[in-house]
Amino acid sequence: MKWKRSERLVDMTQYLMEHPHKLIPLTFFASLYESAKSSISEDLTIVKETFEERGRGLLVTVPGAAGGVKFIPTMTNEDVKVVAKDLMEQLSKAERLLPGGYLYMTDLLGNPTLMNKVGKVFASAFANEKIDAIMTVATKGIPIAHAIARHLNVPVVVVRRDSKVTEGPTVSINYVSGSARRIQTMVLSKRSMEKGQRVLITDDFMKVGGTINGMKSLLEEFNCELAGIAVLVEAEHEGEQLVDEYLSLVKLHEVNEKSGTIALTEGNYFVKGGSLDEGSINN
Amino acid sequence: MKWKRSERLVDMTQYLMEHPHKLIPLTFFASLYESAKSSISEDLTIVKETFEERGRGLLVTVPGAAGGVKFIPTMTNEDVKVVAKDLMEQLSKAERLLPGGYLYMTDLLGNPTLMNKVGKVFASAFANEKIDAIMTVATKGIPIAHAIARHLNVPVVVVRRDSKVTEGPTVSINYVSGSARRIQTMVLSKRSMEKGQRVLITDDFMKVGGTINGMKSLLEEFNCELAGIAVLVEAEHEGEQLVDEYLSLVKLHEVNEKSGTIALTEGNYFVKGGSLDEGSINN
Repeated sequence: MKWKRSERLVDMTQYLMEHPHKLIPLTFFASLYESAKSSISEDLTIVKETFEERGRGLLVTVPGAAGGVKFIPTMTNEDVKVVAKDLMEQLSKAERLLPGGYLYMTDLLGNPTLMNKVGKVFASAFANEKIDAIMTVATKGIPIAHAIARHLNVPVVVVRRDSKVTEGPTVSINYVSGSARRIQTMVLSKRSMEKGQRVLITDDFMKVGGTINGMKSLLEEFNCELAGIAVLVEAEHEGEQLVDEYLSLVKLHEVNEKSGTIALTEGNYFVKGGSLDEGSINN
Repeated sequence: MKWKRSERLVDMTQYLMEHPHKLIPLTFFASLYESAKSSISEDLTIVKETFEERGRGLLVTVPGAAGGVKFIPTMTNEDVKVVAKDLMEQLSKAERLLPGGYLYMTDLLGNPTLMNKVGKVFASAFANEKIDAIMTVATKGIPIAHAIARHLNVPVVVVRRDSKVTEGPTVSINYVSGSARRIQTMVLSKRSMEKGQRVLITDDFMKVGGTINGMKSLLEEFNCELAGIAVLVEAEHEGEQLVDEYLSLVKLHEVNEKSGTIALTEGNYFVKGGSLDEGSINN
């Protein structure tokens, strides 16, 4: 089949979207579409301009024999604000209130469209970091971790509360869980990470930061480095904060069971980091 | 900004890929790109032909005032076979063997590229069914459930072994776990499903089918219907099989700890169902 430019553009867009953060040699597309490298170059310029004009991502060109193009999914801060606003609106509904001042969030974590956006939000903020894996703790952080991982093209590592026979040998640590100050355990399969990897930790909810601190201790046991921390919702609280360097999309200030009010603001995402633009991207 | 056709094609492809199984009126694109509906129609014909020529999905046109287009991600059986082959190659490595004849699969479930493909495999097979939610049990099935859900544009419902304060009121059932014939419990938040929903159950691994049978019992408690069962790996075993109507991508026949051999074949995917082509799609 002989490919027309219009068909190449459609197929190329699809291919790039399914292979983010992956260097693709121009010769790959040239042979896939049986087209000259110069035509492929022109196609990619159109794709690049469209992606960047619309703030949907960057197309980075790496020159040289080992070069190619790399699609970096990004979101404009404006689009991130829309996601944060939507999340705040949903979270502020009184019917989410559970006894003890907890908020029901399970439906949001089960919404693949929202998770896809949240994944892109954080993948965008960490697009410029060297990241080898995303770590989270079972169960609720898993959809967020996978969404980020898909946009960064790296594996997900899931920490568990208990060890399972299907995990093989594990490393376990004890940590002090947040407000209740209870000693808890978390375990991770020895096979899941290699020494020296740079890891982005993520979770759906953070208060004092005990769980995230536990994951940081695990990183030390594996001789891995912390590349960043991304939380969907952080909660204001009195007393010590165990974790400083994190990015949050939304901040929960107050939950009043009596009046049924839930007070939320944007998280520190827009203050601390935010999305990348083309100027700030490294390869 | 005035949009050229080439730019519209790139942006439209991206939009459609991010909104599968969603009916999009032509007027949406017409106003987004400030273009005549006739131009949008021509664009969509190019997108449709490219998607379908490459076996990457269908673009279904719904006529009439409430009509529009809908992107249905699909995979050709040939492409599904490539995914199954890759999975079998990875699973047959002797270093996956764990004491007791278990197979280490955690890294595969943490691989977002593989999970994305697996999601498309099953979304393709069930593209023609009315499905309102994907159900799985924590922890390992979650990445598969989310991958399928994203391609079908439906929510994920996660069953747990224990009830948590952040889930609100729950429904719990007892079930007999597979080979060991132990009585176990699974719980699901009452808020997570509505009466009458059609649910696709998925899991990473199925032997006798006890866990999946447990999820079927939960569906009954919620007055929901079973729309299908999708398992990544089914394992051959002696004795009764508790579940009949399922689709598996890969089948595990034998694990020999002594010789370090793992025998696998394709699952029943290609016999029972497989991907849809354009002729078989309903709207």
